[in-house]
Amino acid sequence: MTSIVPRLPHPADFAAPPGAADLARWAESDEAARPARLARLRARFSAEGIDAYFGIRPEHVRYLTGFSLEDGEDRVAGNSGRFLISGDEVVVLADSRYRLQAGAQAPGARIEATTYDLGSIWPALVKGVGAKRVGVEGGFVSHQQWGELQKAAPDVELVPVAGWIEGDRATKEPAEIERIRAACAVADRALASIVRRIKPGVTERELALALEWEMRTGGADALAFGVACLTGPDAALPHGSPSEREVCRGQVLLFDFGAMVAGYRSDMTRTLFVGEPTARDLAIYEIVAAAQKASIELVAASARGDRPAANGREGDAAARQVIEAAGHGEYFGHGTGHGIGLATHELPSLSRTASEDPLPSPTVFSVEPGIYLDDETGVRIEDLVLYDTTARKLERLTCFPSEVLVVGV
Amino acid sequence: MTSIVPRLPHPADFAAPPGAADLARWAESDEAARPARLARLRARFSAEGIDAYFGIRPEHVRYLTGFSLEDGEDRVAGNSGRFLISGDEVVVLADSRYRLQAGAQAPGARIEATTYDLGSIWPALVKGVGAKRVGVEGGFVSHQQWGELQKAAPDVELVPVAGWIEGDRATKEPAEIERIRAACAVADRALASIVRRIKPGVTERELALALEWEMRTGGADALAFGVACLTGPDAALPHGSPSEREVCRGQVLLFDFGAMVAGYRSDMTRTLFVGEPTARDLAIYEIVAAAQKASIELVAASARGDRPAANGREGDAAARQVIEAAGHGEYFGHGTGHGIGLATHELPSLSRTASEDPLPSPTVFSVEPGIYLDDETGVRIEDLVLYDTTARKLERLTCFPSEVLVVGV
Repeated sequence: MTSIVPRLPHPADFAAPPGAADLARWAESDEAARPARLARLRARFSAEGIDAYFGIRPEHVRYLTGFSLEDGEDRVAGNSGRFLISGDEVVVLADSRYRLQAGAQAPGARIEATTYDLGSIWPALVKGVGAKRVGVEGGFVSHQQWGELQKAAPDVELVPVAGWIEGDRATKEPAEIERIRAACAVADRALASIVRRIKPGVTERELALALEWEMRTGGADALAFGVACLTGPDAALPHGSPSEREVCRGQVLLFDFGAMVAGYRSDMTRTLFVGEPTARDLAIYEIVAAAQKASIELVAASARGDRPAANGREGDAAARQVIEAAGHGEYFGHGTGHGIGLATHELPSLSRTASEDPLPSPTVFSVEPGIYLDDETGVRIEDLVLYDTTARKLERLTCFPSEVLVVGV
Repeated sequence: MTSIVPRLPHPADFAAPPGAADLARWAESDEAARPARLARLRARFSAEGIDAYFGIRPEHVRYLTGFSLEDGEDRVAGNSGRFLISGDEVVVLADSRYRLQAGAQAPGARIEATTYDLGSIWPALVKGVGAKRVGVEGGFVSHQQWGELQKAAPDVELVPVAGWIEGDRATKEPAEIERIRAACAVADRALASIVRRIKPGVTERELALALEWEMRTGGADALAFGVACLTGPDAALPHGSPSEREVCRGQVLLFDFGAMVAGYRSDMTRTLFVGEPTARDLAIYEIVAAAQKASIELVAASARGDRPAANGREGDAAARQVIEAAGHGEYFGHGTGHGIGLATHELPSLSRTASEDPLPSPTVFSVEPGIYLDDETGVRIEDLVLYDTTARKLERLTCFPSEVLVVGV
């Protein structure tokens, strides 16, 4: 049986927020790492016969050039932040609103003026870098824009490419791992700061806002994603939003949340018990905890070299088998885990359809099985782990206890 | 010369936040309006020879069905929230994480299970509604997904459609206008709540967070977008993010921010003066204020029927001419305004490339000229206006004063 946490955690149990020296060091690390990141991308050009890469994912322009948009800002940024990389040039597009910012954040890039009409500058843009065959992020460039680019420069061939930078980003640099670790600590501290405020009658929305506030005044640049705070039957909604529902004694209280620190994200789920747990909720918690443990033990053995290198399907299956064996397989509809970094969901994936290649290393991913009983209750336990086959270790980066924790009493 | 606001505004100067009765009324209004919204969409089918519409914009699924995702949630929601509308059916896709939520929020829709692999369900999905020629949001569906759908059901023709629902959404229903008005009031009150806290030495980031907090605890479901708080030379970045820069006497302080109320957004920019304005900043402010006034007067005359119906190019030109005449044309790089509603930027546009058709009515848009002097200063004044040719009126929905306002003294 899962042990019960003997006391409520305190913020001081967890690492302190990053300071200015950390931020400066990470900025330097990024700058130092960019030539290698670009080199990895360019190394793929010849095999595909392309001479440039056109990208639009905000994570990619940040990773390769330093230019960064806030979450969702790409929706209003037009073509600003889109980029073209040739064998020897890095071009970042910026309209008048973003010109100064792009110049400051991406000193290694040439900043080219753009408007909402990308087709109008496309021929000069590709000619400027001497490209005739351009790899394009076809999973993200819209059907319409693809057609506009083709029409604007019919002699320039567009080649859909997918997963290149995503694949590179799955393997983490030390300074990337430091930031994910720091983001985990910000989240740990934030939850520890609010657990004493959980009382019957407080609403999901109040708690979600309190948790957000603690992260954002406690070292986070931003949230990794909107805080989920779901109680009782709401916890059966794996992606529900906090409502005016009040916390009640005898129900679960699920928090799924993460911080962003210097661009890198954390992600953690804790399902707490408000007052004495019901037998049903406790039984489900035990199964989910056992499922998470099974998956973590499998990937830990793989990291240590005690078994053949694991892939994401095996990491998923280990957790899923436990839930299926307990008769709840149909109530665990999502995958067991996902990579995390500049994006909340990235490679590697732990799921039934994940790659059968061995997990990359070093990498960071979530392990987050759950069981959801419609209109009744839900339990998910999610931690981030650092998987490192060179260091032969698996390390849990989210440090808030995951044993049964009773609050609100 | 622009007058100086005689005293700092108080939160109580503005309308109170919406209550539960308002929220209930708006939910009812949406439900009542959906048949007409669907009918407008379906009325376009025959002219294009399509028998169904496949959409992926989160605003669209909310507008037509009620299913709503938080900002950015579509990035992790896979295909959940994508929808197919035929002549007599509304289908919303939801994976296991979203199934319950979709059922509750979109009672008029059939909820179909999906995975990340849309191609695998596409043939059955289109067959299920009897579609052979499907209009697809080609400006948003990726090049790759378009290809997957084509391949999955080669006998189903995909027809790119653009701007249909966007065009319908530009004309606002009364309950939509009420919500934008309420979102404006939440933002007005929030700024009024923090103006006394602006003192030399406080940072952009601290003020941005304080303003956000006031909105989110003062009636907003969420922010319309991340708060911009930019001081001194930072104000020359029209889309800059708040930094650790401290507010200084003798500099401008620009806030660009908005609230979301029941899904609808506001957007407002105020450029305040910290202590005695410099002659340069004041001169620029005067020009921007005159430019905004010129645009607003033009569209007001159009709304009243005192001149031919204005289009978005004319609305833009009126402001631009003032700035150009003052010799600052090159420092006003963006458009004069944009529609707003379920999205922060939507139709109609007020810009040099806007539609030459008359503005829709009733509609709500921003009027937000600006002048940005690199590394020196920036001024933008942005209000939302309700444009209604039937009521023959133009009404400013953002009520926080826009005259010169000195703070921090």
